[in-house]
Amino acid sequence: MNSFQKEIQLRPKSRGFHLITTEVLDQLKEIEQVEIGMLHLFIKHTSASLTINENADPTVRDDFETHINKMVPENMPYYKHNYEGSDDMPAHIKASLFGHSIQVPITNGKLNLGIWQGIYLGEHRNNGGARVLLATVIGK
Amino acid sequence: MNSFQKEIQLRPKSRGFHLITTEVLDQLKEIEQVEIGMLHLFIKHTSASLTINENADPTVRDDFETHINKMVPENMPYYKHNYEGSDDMPAHIKASLFGHSIQVPITNGKLNLGIWQGIYLGEHRNNGGARVLLATVIGK
Amino acid sequence: MNSFQKEIQLRPKSRGFHLITTEVLDQLKEIEQVEIGMLHLFIKHTSASLTINENADPTVRDDFETHINKMVPENMPYYKHNYEGSDDMPAHIKASLFGHSIQVPITNGKLNLGIWQGIYLGEHRNNGGARVLLATVIGK
Repeated sequence: MNSFQKEIQLRPKSRGFHLITTEVLDQLKEIEQVEIGMLHLFIKHTSASLTINENADPTVRDDFETHINKMVPENMPYYKHNYEGSDDMPAHIKASLFGHSIQVPITNGKLNLGIWQGIYLGEHRNNGGARVLLATVIGK
Repeated sequence: MNSFQKEIQLRPKSRGFHLITTEVLDQLKEIEQVEIGMLHLFIKHTSASLTINENADPTVRDDFETHINKMVPENMPYYKHNYEGSDDMPAHIKASLFGHSIQVPITNGKLNLGIWQGIYLGEHRNNGGARVLLATVIGK
Repeated sequence: MNSFQKEIQLRPKSRGFHLITTEVLDQLKEIEQVEIGMLHLFIKHTSASLTINENADPTVRDDFETHINKMVPENMPYYKHNYEGSDDMPAHIKASLFGHSIQVPITNGKLNLGIWQGIYLGEHRNNGGARVLLATVIGK
C-alpha cells in the first residue's frame, strides 16, 4: 500500500471562498507516485471549510459568499455563542454545512477531477489566519 | 488490497432528487468481490450532487427539491454568475451544500446501508444531461 | 493492511447536537493499533447526521440547533412527506445537509483532530432512539 500523511499550511486568506487546487498540489508532489487511490484533505479548524466547485469564473466564489451570508447571517438575536465576534457563530455553522473534508480520487499520479472542478477553501472568519490541512493518501 | 476505479455514467435525469442505488450497483458488480472496504462515489460535475437519504417514499425526494429551492432561490439580485441561466448559480451552491461525493462501507460484497438508506443524485440543472461518476473502491 | 469494521451503538439522545467523541472512541480501542489510516463513521439512518465542530463551548451546539430550525422549519405548507410527524421531513433534509458520514485521519493510534475539534451527532428527530454507527478503519 502506497499511503502517507502530510500536514500542509495555506497562506492566510480573506473571508470568502478561494480556489486552492494549485496551492495544495504544490505541497503534495508525492501524489505523482500513486497509481490508484484517494486523497483525503482534512481541515483542522472549526470555522473554515473545504468543498469542490467551479474552477473557472471567480464570480461563482463571490456568489457563494454572498448567498451563504444570507443563509447563515451574523447577529441573529438567538445566538448564544457570540463573544468572539459576530462572524464567529456563523463561521461554525457554515463550516459544518460545507464540510470539514473532501475526498478526491487519484488516477495515475493525478487528481481525477472533472474539467471544471477545483478545490475551494471556505474561509468563514474575518481574520482566520494560516489554515492547516492534513492530507492522507491511501492507495497503491 | 482489493482496490479498483471505474467511471460510470447515469442516464439523464430531470431537475430534482433521484434514487440511483440500483443504477449505480448494476455497473459495479466488482463490489461482490470485496470483503471489507469503502465505496467512494465522486461526481465529476459542479452543478449536481450525491447524498444518502430515504429510499422508500418518493415524496421525500419531492420535498428535498421544493425546500432547497427556497433555501437557494433563483434570480437573487446579488448573483453575478448568471449568464448560463437562472438555474446555474443556485446549482453550484446546492452541489456544495449536499456534496460532491459519498462514501459507503462495503461488508461481505455488499453496500452496508441502513434498511431505509439509498443513494440520491441531486440534479440541480434544468438540463444537466448524462452525469459521470467515478467509483473508487479501497478494500480487501 | 490494518483494516476492520465494527458496528457501535450510541445511547439515545434528545433532539439537537451532541458531542460524541468520547462515546465513540470508548468503543473503538482498535484504533490504537493503527499507525496511519482513516476512520470512516457512517450513520445507518436518514434522520440524524454526523459532523465535526467545536468541542468546547456547549452553546455552539445550542446555536446549531436553533439556526438549523430556521433554515429547515417544520410545518412548511409544501411538505408532502408529513405523516410521521412535523419533525420528520425537516430531519431528512438536515441529515443530508450535514451529511451521513465523517472521515477522520488516524496518526500513531489516535484520531488526528484539531485541538478544538470534536465529533457531533445531529439528532434531528424528537425521539430518535439509539442510533447505530458503522465504523470502518482502513490503514496500516
